[in-house]
Amino acid sequence: MNAPFAAPAIDPALVEALRALLGSRLSLSESDRAQHGRDESRHAPRLPDAVCRPHSTEEVSAIVKLCAAHGTPVIAYGVGSSLEGALIPVKGGVSIDMNEMNAILEVRSQDLDVTVQAGVTRKQLNAHLRDTGLFFPIDPGADASIGGMAATRASGTNAVRYGTMRENVLSLTVVLADGRIIRTRSRARKSAAGYDLTGLFVGSEGTLGIITEVTVRLYGIPEVMAAAICAFPSVEAAVDTVIQTIQMGIPVSRVELLDDNAISAVNAYSKLSLPVTPTLFFEFAGSQAGVEEQAAIVEEIAKGEGATNWRWSADADERNRLWQARHDIHWAIRAANPGKQGFGTDVCVPISSLAEVIRGVREDTRQQPFNTTLVGHVGDGNFHFGFQIDPDSPEEVRAAEEAYDKMVAHAVRVGGTCTGEHGVGLGKRKYMRMEYGEAVDVMHLVKNALDPQGILNPGKVLPD
Amino acid sequence: MNAPFAAPAIDPALVEALRALLGSRLSLSESDRAQHGRDESRHAPRLPDAVCRPHSTEEVSAIVKLCAAHGTPVIAYGVGSSLEGALIPVKGGVSIDMNEMNAILEVRSQDLDVTVQAGVTRKQLNAHLRDTGLFFPIDPGADASIGGMAATRASGTNAVRYGTMRENVLSLTVVLADGRIIRTRSRARKSAAGYDLTGLFVGSEGTLGIITEVTVRLYGIPEVMAAAICAFPSVEAAVDTVIQTIQMGIPVSRVELLDDNAISAVNAYSKLSLPVTPTLFFEFAGSQAGVEEQAAIVEEIAKGEGATNWRWSADADERNRLWQARHDIHWAIRAANPGKQGFGTDVCVPISSLAEVIRGVREDTRQQPFNTTLVGHVGDGNFHFGFQIDPDSPEEVRAAEEAYDKMVAHAVRVGGTCTGEHGVGLGKRKYMRMEYGEAVDVMHLVKNALDPQGILNPGKVLPD
Repeated sequence: MNAPFAAPAIDPALVEALRALLGSRLSLSESDRAQHGRDESRHAPRLPDAVCRPHSTEEVSAIVKLCAAHGTPVIAYGVGSSLEGALIPVKGGVSIDMNEMNAILEVRSQDLDVTVQAGVTRKQLNAHLRDTGLFFPIDPGADASIGGMAATRASGTNAVRYGTMRENVLSLTVVLADGRIIRTRSRARKSAAGYDLTGLFVGSEGTLGIITEVTVRLYGIPEVMAAAICAFPSVEAAVDTVIQTIQMGIPVSRVELLDDNAISAVNAYSKLSLPVTPTLFFEFAGSQAGVEEQAAIVEEIAKGEGATNWRWSADADERNRLWQARHDIHWAIRAANPGKQGFGTDVCVPISSLAEVIRGVREDTRQQPFNTTLVGHVGDGNFHFGFQIDPDSPEEVRAAEEAYDKMVAHAVRVGGTCTGEHGVGLGKRKYMRMEYGEAVDVMHLVKNALDPQGILNPGKVLPD
Repeated sequence: MNAPFAAPAIDPALVEALRALLGSRLSLSESDRAQHGRDESRHAPRLPDAVCRPHSTEEVSAIVKLCAAHGTPVIAYGVGSSLEGALIPVKGGVSIDMNEMNAILEVRSQDLDVTVQAGVTRKQLNAHLRDTGLFFPIDPGADASIGGMAATRASGTNAVRYGTMRENVLSLTVVLADGRIIRTRSRARKSAAGYDLTGLFVGSEGTLGIITEVTVRLYGIPEVMAAAICAFPSVEAAVDTVIQTIQMGIPVSRVELLDDNAISAVNAYSKLSLPVTPTLFFEFAGSQAGVEEQAAIVEEIAKGEGATNWRWSADADERNRLWQARHDIHWAIRAANPGKQGFGTDVCVPISSLAEVIRGVREDTRQQPFNTTLVGHVGDGNFHFGFQIDPDSPEEVRAAEEAYDKMVAHAVRVGGTCTGEHGVGLGKRKYMRMEYGEAVDVMHLVKNALDPQGILNPGKVLPD
């Protein structure tokens, strides 16, 4: 195995063949390799042996064929925003940087779909769509590539209304482990024709094939958007409000929960004076009459649960002010915890168990020296506790890991999952057997059938 | 191979073992076998060698283990409403009738989900849910079993709002080809944990495993429902109305298209006097103000496309009267075509090509002696032409098949699929290569990995 900054341990014949294919779009430089060996996670970087920058599906196919002939790992790279080490080449090999495959191939406004090369980012796509009245709603925070979002089954704050990449990818072009190119599905809105290969590749984190083109659904931009915010006496009251809202079929676009610690941090950072208590942030979308009606119903539900300080607005500036605390939360937490590193978590549970699992984490971490802050995409039951730890303290790191292990075990026990949206990558492989039992063996059967050499992003998703 | 009414060609040792397991819930009677050898399709029946009626996942596992040991095919049977021969045991074997696995295991109203045994039918489930304010929306017409609906990725008239079984199954319990039992997924609303096994088994028509339990999403029953109907000068005008409606994000629950031939048949059968021209049937759901607003917007769009005779109502009786033509269409077509057999079709195309593909079918069948009628779930681009043929005329059968082949080829050419909702079964295997190209080979890899003996519903879905 390579040490992180060793010279590349790649077959010179493979380098020569890749150079012939790509010219200067093959890079062996240490800086380039270093950039492609790390992500936004806490996992240790590991350099790839080479970086390729293809321009087409056919070039990706040619790269994979060459690597397959040499038994060399291949790992797709989008913008590097993975939070679980999904792109770190833990066994070396070739990083395929998709950023130069950034063409928006065809917008079909009547069909409400678009086909893009995998390197197109979501903000690039939405900027391109601006004049069509359509938009692509999936918003994981980072300006991720659409290919990376498909590969990790990304979602974000408005999954409660629009679903995740699972629901929004219609079709993929995929390069298989032997270099063959397939299209997983037609563009039809529904199909009962055979196995759902689109679904199989979405979320497979590059371990079953390399996604090179993506066709996703688009939506009409709502006529009016409105925001609301209100404070609750407890997490339970906030969660009960969300449960009733969803049961009534109110099509909220987003509903986010911040706990008292998070509100404290934001009050300090953004000079706000929000009540320091669990707080819900709502976004509504629709017609003017529709959003007014939605907001009125939710206000009534929330007040029935003891909410105070209800405020709402459909005015753009006022909306932004209401949501300012939510928008500023990451910077606020950083400012409130100088010298600390955020240890992020990501479980998703049935909403009936949400308050219980959150309470469990708070009890488990009460005695710890580090601060905890909760941000939840509460409509889906997905939430992120951030533990603000001293990265140089092995005790704090271990305590955070233990608290995370307990959180995941609790989530799985109540019918939830170890990752709502960040993916498995390196960090959650250890939870897969707990969550899936023998179903993990079926995943291995599929992996071995599609990648018998094990060259596609080895060491990810599945436990050994 | 057995002739249809031959005695069972099943290993006596297997019969003995199944009898020891199931007692009188194993049947070899010819009438029982005959019932399990046919569906609602035009495909020739073929008897299974035995019929089993398990009560639990564990019994299904035991049956499959025994059959695996004898290399004997196993085919799951729901209510027999398949339209593509999916349940016909073309290579004999054991039919596993799921009807006695009809327990509703747990309704979780806060989580908006329910777990049922696979034999529960959709009407049984909705009757059970009546007092909860929740419902399960997927409506394929027949009172199908939830397991069968999952296995065939069923949908129906309200997929435009609620999606298909793909979007609505959260988790499955599945018996694998070697009898192992897995659960495909947690109940979390979203998950980024590993391969989407739920999606892999949904739509696999029993060729990858036997579905024994299903967890599906539930929805709040809308406060108000309203219906509307209007007549258009052309299919194009009707389709353009639907495209604009969906682009504007109007959450129609259903939107169905009947062509002039279909309207003629219904006028005669139901003593109506609808204008004999392409006609859209809308259903809206939401709050009182919401459905009124939706209907007003759609009316304006429709009139802009030349619609006449717009009528709408939120009153239950009047709603049913407006939709009567749509509800009566199958009986009306039968009455209008005495002695004929309906040759059903089922393609789904991007909506921008819907009018063109429909026009193509009408041109191709204009010279044929048989009547054609169109019913379309037009919001999804899914439609069904019925060809009313003389089943004893080889020329008419051949002409219908040729017209269907051309329809599918046209649908695939414009980015559509050979089956929107009926499944592949026996009848559409010949289209799979045309639609998927080399992706069919990936399906074969998955099939061979999960069912190396080929005992799970052999002869279905994948071409040889």
